[in-house]
Amino acid sequence: MENPAIQTEHCFSDAARAAVYQAIFSRRDVRGQFLPDPIPDEVLGRVLMAAHHAPSVGFMQPWNFLLVRSREVKQRVHDLFQAANAEAAQLFEGEKREIYSRLKLEGILEAPVNLCITCDRQRTGPVVLGRTHIKTMDLYSTVCAVQNLWLAARAEGLGVGWVSIFDQDKLQDALGIPRDIIPVAYLCLGQVSHFYQKPELENAGWLPRLPVEDLVFYDQWNQGAAPDEPLTDHLRRLQADLRQSGADLK
Amino acid sequence: MENPAIQTEHCFSDAARAAVYQAIFSRRDVRGQFLPDPIPDEVLGRVLMAAHHAPSVGFMQPWNFLLVRSREVKQRVHDLFQAANAEAAQLFEGEKREIYSRLKLEGILEAPVNLCITCDRQRTGPVVLGRTHIKTMDLYSTVCAVQNLWLAARAEGLGVGWVSIFDQDKLQDALGIPRDIIPVAYLCLGQVSHFYQKPELENAGWLPRLPVEDLVFYDQWNQGAAPDEPLTDHLRRLQADLRQSGADLK
Repeated sequence: MENPAIQTEHCFSDAARAAVYQAIFSRRDVRGQFLPDPIPDEVLGRVLMAAHHAPSVGFMQPWNFLLVRSREVKQRVHDLFQAANAEAAQLFEGEKREIYSRLKLEGILEAPVNLCITCDRQRTGPVVLGRTHIKTMDLYSTVCAVQNLWLAARAEGLGVGWVSIFDQDKLQDALGIPRDIIPVAYLCLGQVSHFYQKPELENAGWLPRLPVEDLVFYDQWNQGAAPDEPLTDHLRRLQADLRQSGADLK
Repeated sequence: MENPAIQTEHCFSDAARAAVYQAIFSRRDVRGQFLPDPIPDEVLGRVLMAAHHAPSVGFMQPWNFLLVRSREVKQRVHDLFQAANAEAAQLFEGEKREIYSRLKLEGILEAPVNLCITCDRQRTGPVVLGRTHIKTMDLYSTVCAVQNLWLAARAEGLGVGWVSIFDQDKLQDALGIPRDIIPVAYLCLGQVSHFYQKPELENAGWLPRLPVEDLVFYDQWNQGAAPDEPLTDHLRRLQADLRQSGADLK
């Protein structure tokens, strides 16, 4: 007899598994391709549910979802972005500053919906299972919610862009967020004209994609693969496949 | 003519979209259901590639993947968990302490592979595009890599458990991780006997799942939905569907 406490599906079908990888590999940080069309409420509901089903330390679910649809509030946030971005540009030099100044880094006004995902660190009191020693775990849980929403949005054909160039205190003031609540992510959401094949910063020559096999250590920090480590070949092959095919893993 | 810089697939098919939601809603934090069977290298390669394709601030890709397969290193990490967990138990009182002491919170020794995902905050120098104002963005990027891996693993039928009850300095010493590299997540990975339908902490009565509609604000912090806000009904219906069906959204 089936146990209702246990999931009936274990390993996904090949097609379902490929769909999950497709969302992961084809997700993009969208800045300049938002369309003005509204997001259907049903779709917005689904991506919020995806966020709410992220893992959370001690099951504390520390997140809130502050939807910004008001033109006036968006404008206020956009002004804050512009002030911070002017400061940011000064931190880069020479060619980097030129590239930086040409990059479009947000779609606050164009995206029909903005969404600030916050972390309420006191949601379930001061002592949280799993946060007793590493205090940032609740912030990390909130980021898991961001990533869930981002992948769900990609599957829905919705673009998401994470804007992080803000004075955090001023952003909180613009949204009325109390000081003890952390705005973890400010996102722009909307339908898009297209998704780029590669990340825009990779296309712009800002930085290259790192070879994954160089990032893997074995049993101790800085200990690379043994010469006969079979994982290295798999990683290289997957990387080559992905470079060739876009988002499909063979 | 097709533009090779642009993705050809925009909105996913219904089946592919459902698969992404299935991964999101059926993902579990696994502690006690690991099987000793090895993880095929090809599968391990794919989930690491999924992690490596997370969004990262300024495309800095600050992560490393420290795979732990040595029994001796796992034992050292397990000892650290036990010491920290004994301290943690003392922080809960009464019934909570009793429940706490009965919970299995890690599968370090049983899982064939442990994986520490770290953040190298200096990877691309001190000034990072998008991290100029909010300094934690690189840590958040690393968490996105964790969540990508977790969802890919679920689609592969692999369990993942995030263990966070450690003295962080001692964990770094056990793995040889320098002080300026942050161990963001210590994960246990492996095939599992089964996935639970609900999070274990929900099953154990530790905390309930929060109603998602209470977590959504509109344009300003603490501003709830207008009485005629259509999103509220969608969220309630999705929540009821999900409670009934497990991981399928109608």
